[in-house]
Amino acid sequence: MNDYSPAAADKFSFGLWTVGFQGADPFGAPTRPELDPVRAVHRLAELGAWGITFHDDDLIPFAADESERQRVVSRFREALDETGMTVPMITTNLFGHPVFKDGALTANDRDIRRFALRKMLRNVELAAELGARTFVAWGGREGAETDAGIDARAAFARYKEGIDTVCEFVRDRGYDLRLALEPKPNEPRGDILLPTVGHVLSFIEQLEHPDMVGVNPEVGHEQMAGLNYVHGIAQALWAGKLFHLDLNGQHGAKFDQDLRFGAGDLKSAFFTVDLLENAGYQGPRHFDFKPSRTEDDEGVWTSAAGCMRNYLILRERSAAFRADPRVREALEASRVDELARPTLASGEKPEELLSSAEGFDPEEAGKRAMHYERLDQLALEHLMGLS
Amino acid sequence: MNDYSPAAADKFSFGLWTVGFQGADPFGAPTRPELDPVRAVHRLAELGAWGITFHDDDLIPFAADESERQRVVSRFREALDETGMTVPMITTNLFGHPVFKDGALTANDRDIRRFALRKMLRNVELAAELGARTFVAWGGREGAETDAGIDARAAFARYKEGIDTVCEFVRDRGYDLRLALEPKPNEPRGDILLPTVGHVLSFIEQLEHPDMVGVNPEVGHEQMAGLNYVHGIAQALWAGKLFHLDLNGQHGAKFDQDLRFGAGDLKSAFFTVDLLENAGYQGPRHFDFKPSRTEDDEGVWTSAAGCMRNYLILRERSAAFRADPRVREALEASRVDELARPTLASGEKPEELLSSAEGFDPEEAGKRAMHYERLDQLALEHLMGLS
Amino acid sequence: MNDYSPAAADKFSFGLWTVGFQGADPFGAPTRPELDPVRAVHRLAELGAWGITFHDDDLIPFAADESERQRVVSRFREALDETGMTVPMITTNLFGHPVFKDGALTANDRDIRRFALRKMLRNVELAAELGARTFVAWGGREGAETDAGIDARAAFARYKEGIDTVCEFVRDRGYDLRLALEPKPNEPRGDILLPTVGHVLSFIEQLEHPDMVGVNPEVGHEQMAGLNYVHGIAQALWAGKLFHLDLNGQHGAKFDQDLRFGAGDLKSAFFTVDLLENAGYQGPRHFDFKPSRTEDDEGVWTSAAGCMRNYLILRERSAAFRADPRVREALEASRVDELARPTLASGEKPEELLSSAEGFDPEEAGKRAMHYERLDQLALEHLMGLS
Amino acid sequence: MNDYSPAAADKFSFGLWTVGFQGADPFGAPTRPELDPVRAVHRLAELGAWGITFHDDDLIPFAADESERQRVVSRFREALDETGMTVPMITTNLFGHPVFKDGALTANDRDIRRFALRKMLRNVELAAELGARTFVAWGGREGAETDAGIDARAAFARYKEGIDTVCEFVRDRGYDLRLALEPKPNEPRGDILLPTVGHVLSFIEQLEHPDMVGVNPEVGHEQMAGLNYVHGIAQALWAGKLFHLDLNGQHGAKFDQDLRFGAGDLKSAFFTVDLLENAGYQGPRHFDFKPSRTEDDEGVWTSAAGCMRNYLILRERSAAFRADPRVREALEASRVDELARPTLASGEKPEELLSSAEGFDPEEAGKRAMHYERLDQLALEHLMGLS
Repeated sequence: MNDYSPAAADKFSFGLWTVGFQGADPFGAPTRPELDPVRAVHRLAELGAWGITFHDDDLIPFAADESERQRVVSRFREALDETGMTVPMITTNLFGHPVFKDGALTANDRDIRRFALRKMLRNVELAAELGARTFVAWGGREGAETDAGIDARAAFARYKEGIDTVCEFVRDRGYDLRLALEPKPNEPRGDILLPTVGHVLSFIEQLEHPDMVGVNPEVGHEQMAGLNYVHGIAQALWAGKLFHLDLNGQHGAKFDQDLRFGAGDLKSAFFTVDLLENAGYQGPRHFDFKPSRTEDDEGVWTSAAGCMRNYLILRERSAAFRADPRVREALEASRVDELARPTLASGEKPEELLSSAEGFDPEEAGKRAMHYERLDQLALEHLMGLS
Repeated sequence: MNDYSPAAADKFSFGLWTVGFQGADPFGAPTRPELDPVRAVHRLAELGAWGITFHDDDLIPFAADESERQRVVSRFREALDETGMTVPMITTNLFGHPVFKDGALTANDRDIRRFALRKMLRNVELAAELGARTFVAWGGREGAETDAGIDARAAFARYKEGIDTVCEFVRDRGYDLRLALEPKPNEPRGDILLPTVGHVLSFIEQLEHPDMVGVNPEVGHEQMAGLNYVHGIAQALWAGKLFHLDLNGQHGAKFDQDLRFGAGDLKSAFFTVDLLENAGYQGPRHFDFKPSRTEDDEGVWTSAAGCMRNYLILRERSAAFRADPRVREALEASRVDELARPTLASGEKPEELLSSAEGFDPEEAGKRAMHYERLDQLALEHLMGLS
Repeated sequence: MNDYSPAAADKFSFGLWTVGFQGADPFGAPTRPELDPVRAVHRLAELGAWGITFHDDDLIPFAADESERQRVVSRFREALDETGMTVPMITTNLFGHPVFKDGALTANDRDIRRFALRKMLRNVELAAELGARTFVAWGGREGAETDAGIDARAAFARYKEGIDTVCEFVRDRGYDLRLALEPKPNEPRGDILLPTVGHVLSFIEQLEHPDMVGVNPEVGHEQMAGLNYVHGIAQALWAGKLFHLDLNGQHGAKFDQDLRFGAGDLKSAFFTVDLLENAGYQGPRHFDFKPSRTEDDEGVWTSAAGCMRNYLILRERSAAFRADPRVREALEASRVDELARPTLASGEKPEELLSSAEGFDPEEAGKRAMHYERLDQLALEHLMGLS
Repeated sequence: MNDYSPAAADKFSFGLWTVGFQGADPFGAPTRPELDPVRAVHRLAELGAWGITFHDDDLIPFAADESERQRVVSRFREALDETGMTVPMITTNLFGHPVFKDGALTANDRDIRRFALRKMLRNVELAAELGARTFVAWGGREGAETDAGIDARAAFARYKEGIDTVCEFVRDRGYDLRLALEPKPNEPRGDILLPTVGHVLSFIEQLEHPDMVGVNPEVGHEQMAGLNYVHGIAQALWAGKLFHLDLNGQHGAKFDQDLRFGAGDLKSAFFTVDLLENAGYQGPRHFDFKPSRTEDDEGVWTSAAGCMRNYLILRERSAAFRADPRVREALEASRVDELARPTLASGEKPEELLSSAEGFDPEEAGKRAMHYERLDQLALEHLMGLS
C-alpha cells in the first residue's frame, strides 16, 4: 500500500512564513514563538520537502545592515547545503512595514515607490545568489479603500514601470530568473489591483518583456472571489503562464484562511491535482498555508506534512480516476474529448461555414444528454477511494 | 436647476431584453406581457434614450424563416427611422435554447459549436445591416458544473477559434464592427469561463486579431465576484479595451440582480460615472438591467428613466466634486497626482536606482498620513449633494 | 463489501419538484419534458427511496377545480399504495404565480395575504389526508428589493399571524402535523425575511404555539450566506427544532445551485451526516436538489440515486471515523469531550467562581495545543476512504 | 443651514478600541502609536460624542494588579467627570490573549472557560462601577476551523451556562445592567457560533433570564454574510431585543472592514437611520469602526467625526423623505401601510377564512403593480439631497 511519502521529485516546497507563522491575527496575539529559519529547513527536509521559499524579511530583518545580512544568509545557506534543500523561489515583503501602507510600486508617494523598487532589486540579487529561478511578486498593498484616493490608470502605469524595471535589471545582470505575479482580490486592502489570475495575465501582456513574467495563482485567493481555481490555472496554462502556484485551502468568500492543502474545497483540490499532473506542469508544488494558531510546534509540522500527504493521496486518486474504464466510457459519453477537435474543418472559411447546410436540427440536438451527473459521481467516488 | 433630462449626446442605450423583461425567474412565472419591440423603440425615444440594442432572438423568433425575419427587421427599422433611435450594438443569444445547454462556442458537441458560430455570423450580418458598431458576445453557457466534464484548456482553444472566426468574417466582409466580450463569473453555469474583466482582457491577447476585440464589463457581474467595478474598467481603459459597458446595480455576491443603475452600490456608481466622464470614454452608456417583476408596464419605463436620471445626477455630482477647491486640496494632500509621475527619472537605469542613496528613511516615511478618510468623506458628501 | 443500497429505514425522500425539474433557469428554457408524478413515485421506489414530497401545485394544477383535484390525488395515492412510498411532508407553493410577486403571508395587499393563507389551509387538509406529518413553509417571496417598500416589523407581525393561523387550524382539526419553516437569504427576492436557521428559530419563539413549529434547514441556503451548515443544524437540534431538513450541494455565495447531495462542499456533507447519525435525528433525509439541465431523464435518476448513495457512503465513513482508535485518541488530545462537562461545579455560585483561586496561569494555558490539524486530517482521510 | 453638529441627545458613542486602533492587520505592523484613553475621552468630547465604551483590556492591561487597575480606572473616571462623557457600555476581551485561542465560554478546556467567566464577572463589576447599562459580549473566538474539533451542541450548552452565570451574577449583585450579545459569522475563527442576529435572538430564548439579554448587531457583521442589516435590526426590534448596536461600513462578503459609518453600503445606512429614528430606538448610536491604517492621528478624529456627521446627514434626509408628499403618495401606491392591518378580521377563525368566498381572482391580482421602482427612486434621490 502507498504510504504517501514525499520525494524530491514531487517538488514540494513551503514558504518560510508558513511554518514560521506565529499565529497573530486581527484579533489576537501570536501563540507560537519565532521559528529559526535554519530549523525550518531541517524539519521540512525531514518531512520530505524539496524546497523552501521566503520573503526577504522572513530571513533578514528589515533594518539589518550588510554584515548581519551576510551572516544570516550564510547560516541559512549552510542549512540548505546540509539538507540538500533548494530555494526555488524568493519573494519580497512590500506590505508589512508601515512605509508600504499605501502600496509599494503604486504608492502615491514617489520616494516610497523608489524605495520599494530598490528593495525588490536587492532581493533579486539574493534570489540569484541562492539559485532561485522564480521571483514572486504579490502586490498585497497595491490597492485602495476609497476610489477617490487612487488614480487607477496611473497605478497600472506605475505597476508596469516597476515590473519592467525589475525585468530590465534581471536581463542586465543576466540572471536566469522569471517573475510570477500573484493576484488577490482584497485583504489587507479593501480592493487590491490585479485581483484575479485573469487580471494578472492581462497585465503581463502590457509589459516590456511579457515572456519573462507569469502568474502565481493561490487557491484561496481565487476562491475568495468565488472563482473556480481549476479554470484559473487552466487559463494560465493555456497562455503558457503558469510559472508557479500556491496550494492551500479556503472556505469561499471570507477572510484569507490559508488552510492546509486538502482542507477547504476538497473536490476542487482533487481536480487541481488532476490538472497539474496531466497538463505537464513542471514547476514546484508550493504550499502557502498558515498552520492554525490553535496549534503548537508539533501541529505546525503535522499540518505541513498533511499538505504533502493530501497532494499525494489526490494524485493517486486522480490516476485511478483516469485509468478506470468506466470513467473513460463516461468521458466519451459526455464527448469530453470532442472539444479538442477544431470546430471548423481544416482550411474552412467563415463564409463556407455560414453557407454549410448540414441538416442540423437544434430541437433534436437540444435533447441530447451530457451525462455529467454520472461523470461527476464517478469523480466523487474516486476521490472517496471507491473504485 | 438641472432637470436631468437625457439628450442624444449622452449616448444612453438600452437592451430590448431589459425593458422587455417579462419577470420570469427561477421560482416564478412572467408577470408582464410581451413587449412589442416597436413600442420599446418609441417609448425609449420618448424618454430620451439614444440607442437600443438586442439579441437576435429578442427581435426575431429563433425558428423564423427568411421572410419572417425580413418582415420583423423592416418593421423595426421603420421605428428606428421614425424616432431617430440608433442601434449601436447587437448581440447573439447563445444561451436560451436547450441546444446551448452545454455551451455554444465551447460545447463539447462539435455540431453545436458549428451551429452557434453560424448563428453568430448570421447576426453579424444583421449588425452590419443595422449599422451597429459593436458586437457583444456573452458566453453565458461557456462553463461547467463539474470540472470532470470540460477540458478547460481545449475550451479556451475553441473559444479562441470561435472568436477568431467571427473576426475573420468581419474582415472578409469589410464590416466596420468591433467585438466586445462580456465576462461573468457564474449563473446560469456553476462556473463560467472568462469570469471577470481580467480574464477577458487576457483572452483577447491570445486572439488572431486582438485589435478588433475589447471587453464589455457589467457592473453586477464584477460585483458578484466581490470585485471593484471601477478598478475593472480602469484596467480595461488602460489597456485600450473598454469598447462598451453594461450599467446596472447589484448587492454583492449573490444571484445576478440586474437592478437599475444607481440601485445597489451607490458610491461605486458615483466613481464609475466619475471615471467614465474623466477618462475620455466615448462609447455608449448602455443599461443592462431588469425592471423588477413587481412592476407593471409603467414601472418598466419608470425604472428605465431612473437609470438615465441617476447617471445624470451622478455626472453633475462628479463635476462638482472635481471642481471643489477643498477636494483639490484634499487630493493634493493625498498626493493622488503624484502617481502619474514616473518612478524612475528619465533615462534612469535599474542599477542607478539601486545604488541611489537618497537618504530615504522608511521609519519617517511610514508615519506620513494619506488623508484618505477626509477625501472619501468629501466624495460622500458631494454624492449626497452637500457642497 | 457495502453496495450502498438504500432501504426504507434510511428514510430517504425526494421532492416531486426535484426529479420533476425541467431545467428552466433565468437564461434558458426547459430541457426536459414534464414528469408524470405517478412515474416519479414508481421510479423513486425502484431506486430505494422511502418517501416523496411535493408542493400543492407540483401535483394539482393551480387552477384545478375540485373534481380534477380529486382525480389527481386519487391517482397519486394509488401509486403510493402500489409502491409503499410514503408522503412524509407536504409544502405549499406561495411563490410561482404572479399573485405572489410581493410575497404571500407578508404581501402588502391584504387580500393576497388572505388568499395565500387559504391556499395553505387547503394544503394542510391535503397533508392530513395523505398522512404527512410535516408541513414545510418556505417564504420564498416574503422579502423585498428595496427597504422602502416593506415595513419589516409589520411584515414579521403578519408572518406570525399567518403561521399562528395555520397552527390554530391544525389544532382545531386535530391533525397530527408539525410545521417546519425554511430559511433562505435571497433569491428570488433581493433579500428574504427569515434568511437563516437562526432567524427562523428566533421567529418561532414569538409564535402562539412554538412547540408545533420547527425549522427545515437546506444545505445550500445556509452556504449561500457563507454559514456553516453543521453549526446551523446543531443549533436547531440543541433547541429541539430540527423537524425536517433539505440535503443538497452548493458552491458558496452565489445563486442557489441545488446540486445533488455530495457535490459542493464534500467535507461539510461528511460532518452533516456524522452529526445527523450521532445526534439521534429521526426525521426524513430529504433531498432537495435539481438535476442539472444538461441531463436527460436517465440523468435525473442517476443524480437522485447519487444523493442516496453519497449519504450512505458518508454514513459508513462517519462510522469508521468514530470507531478508529486513533480518532478517539485525537479527540481526547483535543479535549473535545471536555466541552460536555459543565463549567461550574454542581451548585457553584457566580460569587464562588469569581473568588476561586485555582492558580490558573493564562500564560501557560495559552501555550497548550489543541491538535486540531491532526484531528482534521484524520477526518479528511476517513472521508477519502483511508483507514 | 444644518451644520450637522452632534449633541449629547444624539447619544453618539465610540469604542476606545476604535479611535485607539493602531493599524495592525494580518499583513502589516501598527502605523500609529498607542492612544492614551484619557486623550480619547477628551478628543471625543470635543467632537461632540456623548459616550465612550471599551473592553477591559483596552483600559486595563491584561496582567495588571489591583493597584494598577485602581489607578487606571481613577484616572479614566476623572477624564469622564471633566468632560461629562458617559460610559454607556462595557465589553470583555475574550479573544486577544493566546489563552482564548480555542474560545472562552466554549473553549474545550474547562479551566479556560472558568477563567473567561471570571474575567467577565470582574468586568461586570467595573461596568456597574462606571454606571454602564449595557454589557456587550462578542464571542469572537467561540467557533472552529474544523467541525471535528467542536461538539457544537455541547458548545451551545456551555455558552448558555456562561451567559446564565453572568446574568445570575448581575441579579445577585442587584446591578442595573443588561447584556447584549454580538453576532459575527467568521473571522477570526473559520466559523463563529451565533453568526447572525437571528442565531443570537434564538439563543437568548434558551437562557434562564431571556429578559436580561438582547442583541448587539453590527452593520458589517451582517453584511459579511450578505444579509440585510435593516431587516436584521427590524427583527430584533420586533422581538424587543435591540439593546445596543454597532454602526460602521463594509463592502460585502470579505474580511471585516470596519469602515466608518456611511462608507460601504450608503443606501443601507440611509434605511438604517430611517428605521432607528422611526422605530423609537432609544439606545446609543455606537460606532465600531477602525480608522484606516493609512491615517495619522488627525485622520482618526476626521473619521470619527465623519461617522457622526454622516448619521446626522442621513437623519435629515430620512426626515425629508418621510415628509415629502410625493413619498407619502408613493408609499400609498405601494400599499406599504396595508401591511400593518391584520390579515384576519377581528375574531375571525381559520375555518371562516378557509370558507370565505371573497370572489378573489388571482389572475387579476397578479397584474397589480407594486410601484417599488418609483418609491426606491424617491428614496435614492432624497439620499442624494434632491427634494
